[in-house]
Amino acid sequence: MTLTELQQVIDQWISQYEEGYWPPLANLARLTEEVGELARELNHAHGSKPKKTGESSGSVDEELGDIVFAAATLANSLGIDLEAAVRGSVAKVRRRDDRRFVRKKADEPSGA
Amino acid sequence: MTLTELQQVIDQWISQYEEGYWPPLANLARLTEEVGELARELNHAHGSKPKKTGESSGSVDEELGDIVFAAATLANSLGIDLEAAVRGSVAKVRRRDDRRFVRKKADEPSGA
Amino acid sequence: MTLTELQQVIDQWISQYEEGYWPPLANLARLTEEVGELARELNHAHGSKPKKTGESSGSVDEELGDIVFAAATLANSLGIDLEAAVRGSVAKVRRRDDRRFVRKKADEPSGA
Amino acid sequence: MTLTELQQVIDQWISQYEEGYWPPLANLARLTEEVGELARELNHAHGSKPKKTGESSGSVDEELGDIVFAAATLANSLGIDLEAAVRGSVAKVRRRDDRRFVRKKADEPSGA
Repeated sequence: MTLTELQQVIDQWISQYEEGYWPPLANLARLTEEVGELARELNHAHGSKPKKTGESSGSVDEELGDIVFAAATLANSLGIDLEAAVRGSVAKVRRRDDRRFVRKKADEPSGA
Repeated sequence: MTLTELQQVIDQWISQYEEGYWPPLANLARLTEEVGELARELNHAHGSKPKKTGESSGSVDEELGDIVFAAATLANSLGIDLEAAVRGSVAKVRRRDDRRFVRKKADEPSGA
Repeated sequence: MTLTELQQVIDQWISQYEEGYWPPLANLARLTEEVGELARELNHAHGSKPKKTGESSGSVDEELGDIVFAAATLANSLGIDLEAAVRGSVAKVRRRDDRRFVRKKADEPSGA
Repeated sequence: MTLTELQQVIDQWISQYEEGYWPPLANLARLTEEVGELARELNHAHGSKPKKTGESSGSVDEELGDIVFAAATLANSLGIDLEAAVRGSVAKVRRRDDRRFVRKKADEPSGA
């Protein structure tokens, strides 16, 4: 599934309902909620927090999926092409980290 | 670009460096930082917060791209298939919201 | 209750247990989780999100309390005086916003 | 400084301006932004992220202060008594963790 396909699936789904897209700050709050759920799951699995008895299950996989879903929904509501945005992030990080980290070897394989 | 391709691009990029992937809670902190930057941009563009003079530019597009990038990096570090996770989120939301929202029309187009 | 008293109460409470304070990034994840819960409650009360049937109750009050509690716990774990930090934030915002917002009246009451 | 005094200081400060309090989801976005800045600082100080050259300074102390300030501002805007909310969080965590953690010694000192 491409990010563009994800945005299309979400748009078809939202288009079925009267409510339509939420306002930007409500979608942001939804994304914040999903990141909070991921934080809870990661603290259980890789941090210091013991599970409460009966605490709702969930998984890191599920919360990561929900975060991308929430980001794509917010992007849709603002007419943003998420795939183009992600390509921009890839390009930006490559430029920035070239100046910050130590490479394993002097010459980078072609095409990397 | 599929989410799987994004995960591969990130893995090739990280594999060049000695540091490798960060621990899960450090990647979560990075994701939290990116969501904070999105919150700042959305408050500027759609909320109540005026820009400080000289405040670092940025854009909602860019921050959304960075969030998906950070989520994919965290998924990589834990061996999670983000595309499968997102498919799960799509399926879950469809099931859940069928019981919560008012549809526009009584009969849903086939295939939707 | 002063913030200093809150920090003392938390320290007495944590000191009873073998585990002691969590590492900084685990405490940050806890804070992130609490902000996510606040986001959920605010979206229910002031945003666009309808409650799921049977969704765990909670309240904006409770989540705000949990956020200050989590911030004070993190401060404790790092030896930070939260009251001094908050005084610094008050001073900073006063300086900054003097240059950004329109005052109601030309002359500010003395001591304000 | 008590939390009640902090809420009063913020109210006097906001009351000077035409804008008044922001809507709840805009204040939440501000809080999310501050948590993101804390995440960045903690990742620098206790995590895996090297500082970019020229990256704006800041400190964990400052970001923690800003988070409490943002929480108190949001509480004000909704008429919430933050001190009562924090007392509730203290009481809740004491009840909950009594059932989850191992105490250092069998008998708890009186008054703890």
